[in-house]
Amino acid sequence: MRDPIVAVATPFGESAVGIVRLSGKGVLEIARRFFKTKAEIKPRYAHYGTLLDEKGEPLDEGLLIYYKAPKSYTGEDMVEISLHGNPLILKRAVEVFISGGCRLAEPGEFTKRAFLNGKMDLTQAEAVAELISAKTDLARRVALRQLKGELSKHIKPLRESLLQLLAYIEADIEFSEEDIPTLTKEQVVSMVEEVISGIDKLLRTAKTGKFIREGVKLAIVGKPNVGKSSLFNALLREDRAIVTDIEGTTRDYIEETVNLRGIPLVLVDTAGIREAKDPVERIGIERTLKKIEEADVILFVLDGSKPLTEEDKRIYEQVRGKNLIVVVNKTDLGTVIPLEIFEGHSIIKVSALKGEGIRNLEEEILKRAGVLVEDGINVYVSVRHEELLKKAKGVLERFLERYRREEVSPEIAMLDIREASDYLGEIVGEITTEDILSSIFSRFCIGK
Amino acid sequence: MRDPIVAVATPFGESAVGIVRLSGKGVLEIARRFFKTKAEIKPRYAHYGTLLDEKGEPLDEGLLIYYKAPKSYTGEDMVEISLHGNPLILKRAVEVFISGGCRLAEPGEFTKRAFLNGKMDLTQAEAVAELISAKTDLARRVALRQLKGELSKHIKPLRESLLQLLAYIEADIEFSEEDIPTLTKEQVVSMVEEVISGIDKLLRTAKTGKFIREGVKLAIVGKPNVGKSSLFNALLREDRAIVTDIEGTTRDYIEETVNLRGIPLVLVDTAGIREAKDPVERIGIERTLKKIEEADVILFVLDGSKPLTEEDKRIYEQVRGKNLIVVVNKTDLGTVIPLEIFEGHSIIKVSALKGEGIRNLEEEILKRAGVLVEDGINVYVSVRHEELLKKAKGVLERFLERYRREEVSPEIAMLDIREASDYLGEIVGEITTEDILSSIFSRFCIGK
Repeated sequence: MRDPIVAVATPFGESAVGIVRLSGKGVLEIARRFFKTKAEIKPRYAHYGTLLDEKGEPLDEGLLIYYKAPKSYTGEDMVEISLHGNPLILKRAVEVFISGGCRLAEPGEFTKRAFLNGKMDLTQAEAVAELISAKTDLARRVALRQLKGELSKHIKPLRESLLQLLAYIEADIEFSEEDIPTLTKEQVVSMVEEVISGIDKLLRTAKTGKFIREGVKLAIVGKPNVGKSSLFNALLREDRAIVTDIEGTTRDYIEETVNLRGIPLVLVDTAGIREAKDPVERIGIERTLKKIEEADVILFVLDGSKPLTEEDKRIYEQVRGKNLIVVVNKTDLGTVIPLEIFEGHSIIKVSALKGEGIRNLEEEILKRAGVLVEDGINVYVSVRHEELLKKAKGVLERFLERYRREEVSPEIAMLDIREASDYLGEIVGEITTEDILSSIFSRFCIGK
Repeated sequence: MRDPIVAVATPFGESAVGIVRLSGKGVLEIARRFFKTKAEIKPRYAHYGTLLDEKGEPLDEGLLIYYKAPKSYTGEDMVEISLHGNPLILKRAVEVFISGGCRLAEPGEFTKRAFLNGKMDLTQAEAVAELISAKTDLARRVALRQLKGELSKHIKPLRESLLQLLAYIEADIEFSEEDIPTLTKEQVVSMVEEVISGIDKLLRTAKTGKFIREGVKLAIVGKPNVGKSSLFNALLREDRAIVTDIEGTTRDYIEETVNLRGIPLVLVDTAGIREAKDPVERIGIERTLKKIEEADVILFVLDGSKPLTEEDKRIYEQVRGKNLIVVVNKTDLGTVIPLEIFEGHSIIKVSALKGEGIRNLEEEILKRAGVLVEDGINVYVSVRHEELLKKAKGVLERFLERYRREEVSPEIAMLDIREASDYLGEIVGEITTEDILSSIFSRFCIGK
């Protein structure tokens, strides 16, 4: 068992209950020194008692639950203490346990230990963080499925195929004189192709996976008075607004997130893009241009009831190369604007004021972003998974190409297949390094 | 058992753990419908399982603990479910249990039920809220002692004395013909005087109790450039700053709270008080004057290295009637200012810049505020307790006065003693009404 760690597991703030959790070697003994109960401590049983401070003075009353290894979240001995939800009390409790020999846990260290102790694989550990930060029901469902091991169920068979192939090639080298079964060239090709096809299936979920996790970034651009703000508000129906943690600061654009069929849609209402002489204004415009650059989809808004102006055309020139939807607004006032020059782009007519055409527009946004939410798909790979899947696929494709031309020795074949299988192993954490783990768990909150 | 209620017990925010709690009739059955575990549910035992939504789809995985009445916080059947600390999940979980027949708990309703079910008296219930919001270690200790029943230990014997007296008087009336022991006039007077003396002892803690709970309000006034901000900063040593929940808004004064020997010291650095023509500025000055009006202690700051000016004198005239400390600053530059006109006020010399004299000043602040922190005192009554204690004392004093003059019939005596005893009963909650309970519990957070 690893060294004892301690952290607050609940958010900062005043509330009914706050939880301090301990994990590692000797945590029950440490907890017992400070938490006084009448009865003997039984595993998984809620014991009422008094938590004392370093001097033996009562700090608070609460409940202690002991989880005996390996039947705990981390797989180690764990203690969870529920106290009154006062940040002062929780901070003091952590200090008390540190005085007792614990160390403050690093972000994600409890889950990291769960992974290291074999309680979950790496995709499941990642799912814990995603489950906590899920902003929509779809994101929650996807994270929960991944937590239950759905993604691993797709990755592991692919890796096993490669390891099997590896065993065959190895046997071929070592026992080439003997009469053991071996694979034909066609069988090798077919096995590798099947793995590539499995990887492709997962890769197709990557884009949507990213959108589910991070949202679709949507920039609304257009000259003044075409109804950008009305459109922003029409998309931002209050019942769908997602409360985000972003602090209110001075901004040159307004940003809000709504839930569009389970996909967080990050709406950015940009300031006008125009020639600026004032340096402060220029900074604002630069930020706006950056937002447009980062956007997954751009809504280029026009006033359909009026002729096209030079300013419309100038803005169009700036965004025409992007993933664009031309939104013809104010259709309730009639449409006079010529639309020929926008041919090749999606054109959606709406009346933001009357809420007409908004549903169509939303469909088009998901389509243009490339969102793929199908009932049959259970998993959506993350950016990390995508990168590793692409690497594995790349190695296998290069291998196949040379293998077909018979340019590969069995020794080189082994190296290639091993490399590809290691990339897949890295996804589930069967192959890992401290660097990989740090980069994953440092994004967790403390206490998880 | 009362109707089933549900609420989130942890603060809003992303974290490792979030808790949903249920209390009341049938909560185990409701919880069982949605929370699926392998084993039979045993009281006080942490069961791992999956929480389902209204449609039977998995919502999250977590731990369920069942507390069987009367061995629970509320004294009713209770269920606590630990889930991943995602506000979305916790909100959905509450919705699920509401669909199952629970109602969203009102603020403080769990603790109110604990009181109604005899798990704690009213001073203990009040202590729960105080323990959660305690901003200093002293406030926490005082709340914890009150939670353990320390205050009731002082109140109940006083009330019992009165009830005993009442029984004697009653017996005197009903069985006046018979030969039963009765009290002499001296005995009655002595009993009542003893109760009054007990009340007085508690009343002496009220001011400090208020300061421990709400802090001492300290306004710093003085003309520009006398070093108000330096003094503010010298008192606000960073290691003692208390993080408060007050939102940052445009203010005409700066307010910070520090921990001065367990007493939250609310420092207000006021804008200058001067004649204003501008209406906006006038509003600012009015707010400043209000802060001065509300202050428990005022620090009137002078630059000791310079002669007194007309502006100093004008400000002094505005505050001289208040609870004042004259702070002579910049003593490091020598003291030339005449101090005779401030005779009768506390005068403290400091160098805010060098940190000299600050400790003296702090002592004087506590002294002038009337803070009384003695080791021998275990309880500090709250404003509500103080009001009731004063009412009880008033009734008893008026009774004594007339009783000594033999103007009171036994029937009137009974009414008086009963009234006083009811006031004491209201403190601990033996006498109560729905209005009293509402006003107490509405200040709690939801989930407690």
